[in-house]
Amino acid sequence: MIEDFRGFIRPEGTVGPGDDAAVIGGGTVVSTDIVTFDRHFPAGMTYEQFGWYAAAVNFSDLAAMGARPTGLLAALALPMDLEAQAAYDIMSGMDQCAEFCGTGIVGGDTKVGPGIVTGTAIGTMDGRRPMLRSGARPGDIVAVTGPVGGPAAGFLSLEHGVDAPEARDCLYVPVPRVAEGMALASCGAVSSCMDLSDGLGTALRTICACSGVGMDVELDFIPRGPYVDEMAEVSGTPVEDILLGWGGEYELVFTIDRDGLERVYDAEVEFSIIGLVNDSGRAELVHDGERRGIGHGAF
Amino acid sequence: MIEDFRGFIRPEGTVGPGDDAAVIGGGTVVSTDIVTFDRHFPAGMTYEQFGWYAAAVNFSDLAAMGARPTGLLAALALPMDLEAQAAYDIMSGMDQCAEFCGTGIVGGDTKVGPGIVTGTAIGTMDGRRPMLRSGARPGDIVAVTGPVGGPAAGFLSLEHGVDAPEARDCLYVPVPRVAEGMALASCGAVSSCMDLSDGLGTALRTICACSGVGMDVELDFIPRGPYVDEMAEVSGTPVEDILLGWGGEYELVFTIDRDGLERVYDAEVEFSIIGLVNDSGRAELVHDGERRGIGHGAF
Repeated sequence: MIEDFRGFIRPEGTVGPGDDAAVIGGGTVVSTDIVTFDRHFPAGMTYEQFGWYAAAVNFSDLAAMGARPTGLLAALALPMDLEAQAAYDIMSGMDQCAEFCGTGIVGGDTKVGPGIVTGTAIGTMDGRRPMLRSGARPGDIVAVTGPVGGPAAGFLSLEHGVDAPEARDCLYVPVPRVAEGMALASCGAVSSCMDLSDGLGTALRTICACSGVGMDVELDFIPRGPYVDEMAEVSGTPVEDILLGWGGEYELVFTIDRDGLERVYDAEVEFSIIGLVNDSGRAELVHDGERRGIGHGAF
Repeated sequence: MIEDFRGFIRPEGTVGPGDDAAVIGGGTVVSTDIVTFDRHFPAGMTYEQFGWYAAAVNFSDLAAMGARPTGLLAALALPMDLEAQAAYDIMSGMDQCAEFCGTGIVGGDTKVGPGIVTGTAIGTMDGRRPMLRSGARPGDIVAVTGPVGGPAAGFLSLEHGVDAPEARDCLYVPVPRVAEGMALASCGAVSSCMDLSDGLGTALRTICACSGVGMDVELDFIPRGPYVDEMAEVSGTPVEDILLGWGGEYELVFTIDRDGLERVYDAEVEFSIIGLVNDSGRAELVHDGERRGIGHGAF
């Protein structure tokens, strides 16, 4: 079904579909994402956190381009019998996330529905060049803005009844890397960028595919979020699956032109180097000298 | 519930909530609206028309401000068992409407849901001043861009089994007045503007409330859409209710600074004068020398 839609989506400006967000006339960047009570409301999440999440997924798409958010639209289709307080909490969560990202809710709509929230984030490039998925070149350095696996560990902790509050926070309150994205786009040395909403593995494969390159990523270089090792052991899930195979992550993965590495350090963005771009055409995970292809996420 | 939300919505730029669309930094105009299979899919409507409608309601909000559309985002939550052709038709209808409005679909999202489509229209003022609901002044002329009552007549024709194809077209394929809105904003003589999505009566009352003015509107001056008189007779509904009390209309109502009337004629926008702004604080309908207050729409 989704495949059919691609044909309709066309760029009106410099960057079209297939990237994290679309860049339209005048450097305006837009992204829309649906979250639902059904699919995005894990046990223990509050309505306020659900609202934050609904906003965060959209701001994360802007962050991946390096855009500065200028507004959020909130379209809510909520059950008739939902308590007013719950609806208020969702809006409050969206509002808090928008404020964290330097903007606010500028409009919206409410209808009756089963609990479907569509957020639309609007932003501007302020003259910066948008970071795309297609600019990685052999020799570039692969990096992430922070630890990964936290949301997966949080999810597994729920499934296995393990008390892992920091991991659950990763799951419930993902932090869109807006400031980091703007700084990375500004420094001029980042050749490609993508957020991890579909998981690190999918992101690495996607950058490889869009850029026509390959990558070697060292498993031990990937910074691990809270409770990743514990939950791998408890659940019997391989650590690499937790780190690469799950979504719901909102760090950024990006590639750095090696000659510009100093500029990325100057940008004062925290990051960890996890690998190198090559011309193999394949994204591969290296561990103890062995290598295997990186698959798409399972989450 | 909706009342609670108002407090969260804040203008990041010049124009905030409570108008047809929000104007954010750099003259970017945004609007989002939800339409649902449940509420916005009258008998006889095709999926393609539903898609057109979902786009049109958003472009109409932009039209009311005088913005030029630069993109449409389409977020679809569709039933798992919906035929692929139906989903395709919805996207095709949205695409056709976007093209009619001079732009295209620039992004979107799809999830499983009960048939909820959230469109988000993005536009730019190109340096024009946005037309607000709050600028009408006593002495201004009240006008509409075209005939009203067509969608209501179409709806009544379905209810009463009357064959009224032109009225049903008004219901199924509303035309957002984007070109008209841009021309009206450009001419510099329009003091306020609003679309008729909640009905002419509500629009007139809203402009009066936002502008702190009153209005006299002549019933006989309001141009009537197809089958309005026939359906009034068949259904026993007063003509004024059909013209003023129903929504789903997408003409624009606006007020003209009398000294600038010539400039509106020069803008080559078709319009009909329906009344005058006064300082009474009340929107009133005048018919055969009698007057009565204009109520909110029933639709």
